[in-house]
Amino acid sequence: MNIAAIHPLPDSGSEGARLASRLNVPMVPIEIHRFPDGELRVTANLIAETSIIYGSLDHPSDKLLALLFAAEALRRQGARRLVLVAPYLCYMRQDTAFHAGEAISQKVVGELLAAAFDRVITVDAHLHRTKSIRDVFPGIESEDVSSMPAVAETLRGSGLAIATIVVGPDQESEAWVTDLAARLGLGHAVGHKARRGDRSVVITFDEASRLESRPILLIDDIVSTGGTLIACAKALVDAGVTTIDAVVTHALFAPELTTEFLRAGIRSVRSTCTVPHPSNAIALDAILAEALRVEVGP
Amino acid sequence: MNIAAIHPLPDSGSEGARLASRLNVPMVPIEIHRFPDGELRVTANLIAETSIIYGSLDHPSDKLLALLFAAEALRRQGARRLVLVAPYLCYMRQDTAFHAGEAISQKVVGELLAAAFDRVITVDAHLHRTKSIRDVFPGIESEDVSSMPAVAETLRGSGLAIATIVVGPDQESEAWVTDLAARLGLGHAVGHKARRGDRSVVITFDEASRLESRPILLIDDIVSTGGTLIACAKALVDAGVTTIDAVVTHALFAPELTTEFLRAGIRSVRSTCTVPHPSNAIALDAILAEALRVEVGP
Repeated sequence: MNIAAIHPLPDSGSEGARLASRLNVPMVPIEIHRFPDGELRVTANLIAETSIIYGSLDHPSDKLLALLFAAEALRRQGARRLVLVAPYLCYMRQDTAFHAGEAISQKVVGELLAAAFDRVITVDAHLHRTKSIRDVFPGIESEDVSSMPAVAETLRGSGLAIATIVVGPDQESEAWVTDLAARLGLGHAVGHKARRGDRSVVITFDEASRLESRPILLIDDIVSTGGTLIACAKALVDAGVTTIDAVVTHALFAPELTTEFLRAGIRSVRSTCTVPHPSNAIALDAILAEALRVEVGP
Repeated sequence: MNIAAIHPLPDSGSEGARLASRLNVPMVPIEIHRFPDGELRVTANLIAETSIIYGSLDHPSDKLLALLFAAEALRRQGARRLVLVAPYLCYMRQDTAFHAGEAISQKVVGELLAAAFDRVITVDAHLHRTKSIRDVFPGIESEDVSSMPAVAETLRGSGLAIATIVVGPDQESEAWVTDLAARLGLGHAVGHKARRGDRSVVITFDEASRLESRPILLIDDIVSTGGTLIACAKALVDAGVTTIDAVVTHALFAPELTTEFLRAGIRSVRSTCTVPHPSNAIALDAILAEALRVEVGP
């Protein structure tokens, strides 16, 4: 029997193949058949002592069930160890009851996955009130891998102007912004975000004059409705920046939004491969392979 | 605080209201907000010592997650007892690995719900290899309520010809067929089913001449692709029956299939309310209220 194998979910086949090739382990995709009544039939064939299941968890309802079904099938076939690589981890934002009666879905999803897997690896988990990924997955091994080394490596190869300032929309992005700016040897700035209602967001910068006539590298971890990115671009355009290029970790937005980003003054949007998306430009197989090296033996 | 309350899932509101009214307990719907990225925000407000969650589990991925989220929210608010009424229970058919590597999803879903609820009530669970509903839900209370008393009551009021024969397509339907026939004082017959490939089914009857010139009441528990019902109608038409009226417990079929049923000689299809569907004609609130009577006090 093999030491380890990669089992990608159906829509993560190409990233799974890239990772399998880098780790030099075989790949057997998880098959999902959907019946007319919405039930899923999941097939996962065991071929290794350690099964590494790879899947991005955007649009997660079917995928979460498929993961639990696959884990059951592999355990029953005698799997020694199940590792989940979920480069985008769903439900991290609902970490408290914002209103009476709301479920804390982060807790439910964390416990479900912790019961099914021995180890979970994710990338840039959107943690806010929960301090550590270990609190999301009680009793199992877990890691939150930073995408910043991969982002920096890709950007270094793309000819950044030395005057570029790395900008984040709000305090939550400060850690990534300072990390990436240090890696690239660039200046940085972080905005203040104020919400006006459900979708409307206003962003302001202290000492906005510092941004004038500068090229901007705008970064954020999750882009979903695009509201924050667009509000940030408005503030930057008002401050008189020359260009805005955006880099996001998790591209959850509808690809059609790209037109609105352009209209707001964002020249380009590049994303990491955590969510399969037309904007994907930053491969993560090298950093994920590093985290998985211990699973595949010497 | 109230003794008990009904919390229907969004698409089960009208059945939930009917049940709440019969039990004379308040109703607070579970709210599900769907974000653009496919995540759900579930809100369930606790108003009683016992929360009775009501939801049909067709197209189950979102609903299963919503049930787990709702259970978390209610428990955190101090719920004493959580009862799930799932008149249609999903994933009961996948009770073994039919091919190598297949997940036994019945087991996974049973364990998920058993961990979240204190009691599960369902109707005509499609059990085959698993002998009892108690084996599906280890460690909690569970009941599989028969719809046949409600079916018989509705049919008695609809003027059945005394010559009518109650027919089931295969051996699996024998228990319901004999039960219903006895309740209505009618004769009965059960076919033999042979599968030819994935969708094609052939049904035959011993002593088919017994069916000649008789009105037929055709019953089945789950109608999904409709293949079994149509194959059975063909065999009945060949046997020279006068009319075919069908009654199904769980109507999972696309409503457009009704045209095909008509073409196959099935004059009418009526279903119980376990799955919200245009064919719903048999209310189950009386039998479900009976099973729930113990939850609402004297």
